[in-house]
Amino acid sequence: MHTEKNTLKQANPPEIKAAMLIIGDEILSGRTQDKNLAWLSDYLGKLGIQMAEVRVVPDVHEKIVSAVNELRRAYDYVFTTGGIGPTPDDITAEAIAAAFDLPYQFHPDAKKILEHFYGDQINEARLRMAKMPRGAKLIDNPVSHAPGFYVENVFVMAGVPKIMQAMAMNLDGVLARGAVRHQISFTTPLREGVISETLAAAMKEFPDVSFGSYPRFLDGGGTEVTLVLRGYDETALQTAQKWVLEKFSAL
Amino acid sequence: MHTEKNTLKQANPPEIKAAMLIIGDEILSGRTQDKNLAWLSDYLGKLGIQMAEVRVVPDVHEKIVSAVNELRRAYDYVFTTGGIGPTPDDITAEAIAAAFDLPYQFHPDAKKILEHFYGDQINEARLRMAKMPRGAKLIDNPVSHAPGFYVENVFVMAGVPKIMQAMAMNLDGVLARGAVRHQISFTTPLREGVISETLAAAMKEFPDVSFGSYPRFLDGGGTEVTLVLRGYDETALQTAQKWVLEKFSAL
Repeated sequence: MHTEKNTLKQANPPEIKAAMLIIGDEILSGRTQDKNLAWLSDYLGKLGIQMAEVRVVPDVHEKIVSAVNELRRAYDYVFTTGGIGPTPDDITAEAIAAAFDLPYQFHPDAKKILEHFYGDQINEARLRMAKMPRGAKLIDNPVSHAPGFYVENVFVMAGVPKIMQAMAMNLDGVLARGAVRHQISFTTPLREGVISETLAAAMKEFPDVSFGSYPRFLDGGGTEVTLVLRGYDETALQTAQKWVLEKFSAL
Repeated sequence: MHTEKNTLKQANPPEIKAAMLIIGDEILSGRTQDKNLAWLSDYLGKLGIQMAEVRVVPDVHEKIVSAVNELRRAYDYVFTTGGIGPTPDDITAEAIAAAFDLPYQFHPDAKKILEHFYGDQINEARLRMAKMPRGAKLIDNPVSHAPGFYVENVFVMAGVPKIMQAMAMNLDGVLARGAVRHQISFTTPLREGVISETLAAAMKEFPDVSFGSYPRFLDGGGTEVTLVLRGYDETALQTAQKWVLEKFSAL
């Protein structure tokens, strides 16, 4: 019986860190702008899972294998996007099997889903989407049916944003929930070179709050700076914001 | 005298590979959508420098140091974006100095540029932008004046796209030029599961061409697939495209 410990754990949810591995020549070549990182970070953030590192690698077997192995050992979760379709440039599933040193073979349930969906349009290419590391668990795909999958802490999802998002939303009950990091942001017309000293003082005053300062060029000329405060304690963020705004009003 | 060898080298320009390191909590948190990767890949591609890997790390000293050290040893060039402003969350320059085990100190020319630009508005925060690894070479910044810099094969640039682009365009004469990888793309209404076999055959027929297949959901319903062919020989790309299109017309 660990009732006390469990209660304590609920009161102080753990810090959970994730990495994302974006797989695809089309992102590296600049042809396609990745849209999954921003969406996934935001989605995971609400579950209390912090995006801690992202890598983009080409559709090259060895590159995928080594990145997956580095990331799955360094972070609580790894989320991959891209390379699980039916065409021969889709090599992610086989690379994941290699990373875990597992056989790459038909997943019986995935095969049934595809056979049912495609009916007499099923062919070898489409069936390839049912090949996975042995023992992989499926991630439901309500959009185009071919499932994603996960092995241990590595979640393998499609690259098409609509499908990736549908898959990720099916992970809500699967992923552990951690401490949610909140953020407050506000904008000032003061220049970064003017507010820097105040920010340094705020960092000392509120060591549990992380401060980010992001300048932006305005269309009509001039600049503004957005301050972003992040931390686990919402009240502390509000107190820090008030403190900073008071100092700013004197600048 | 290596005349013959040099001639040979010009006829077959080298394959040059680059990595990009995007530094910033704002990208990882999903608050800001990175726009630099697509632009920089495209820009470098035209110089014959291939983007081979990208990493995104938070504003954390150790994470920057270890990523820089891994990437600069693995690739011909590393390009970093973000974290070189005047506020205390800007820690990139100091981390680069640590990665190279170089002192972090005022660069005399950078200091002069900032003093000249800011005049009597100069202060400690703004002067911090002149602190760099000892011996760093400057990258001119025509937009907001605070220069970027490079040490050996690592190029340190601003995160604001407008400034990053201006800095990168100043590197044209500094970077070596490699073999330019061309690409051709075209779209088909055929589904991926239908064209897969033809693509596999094309990959065997044209081993020097890389084939990518990217499905997309259309707004009005249905899907289309974009085929992207990449390679060093433009004529080979055209031949491969013609070959594929002929096979497609029979499907």
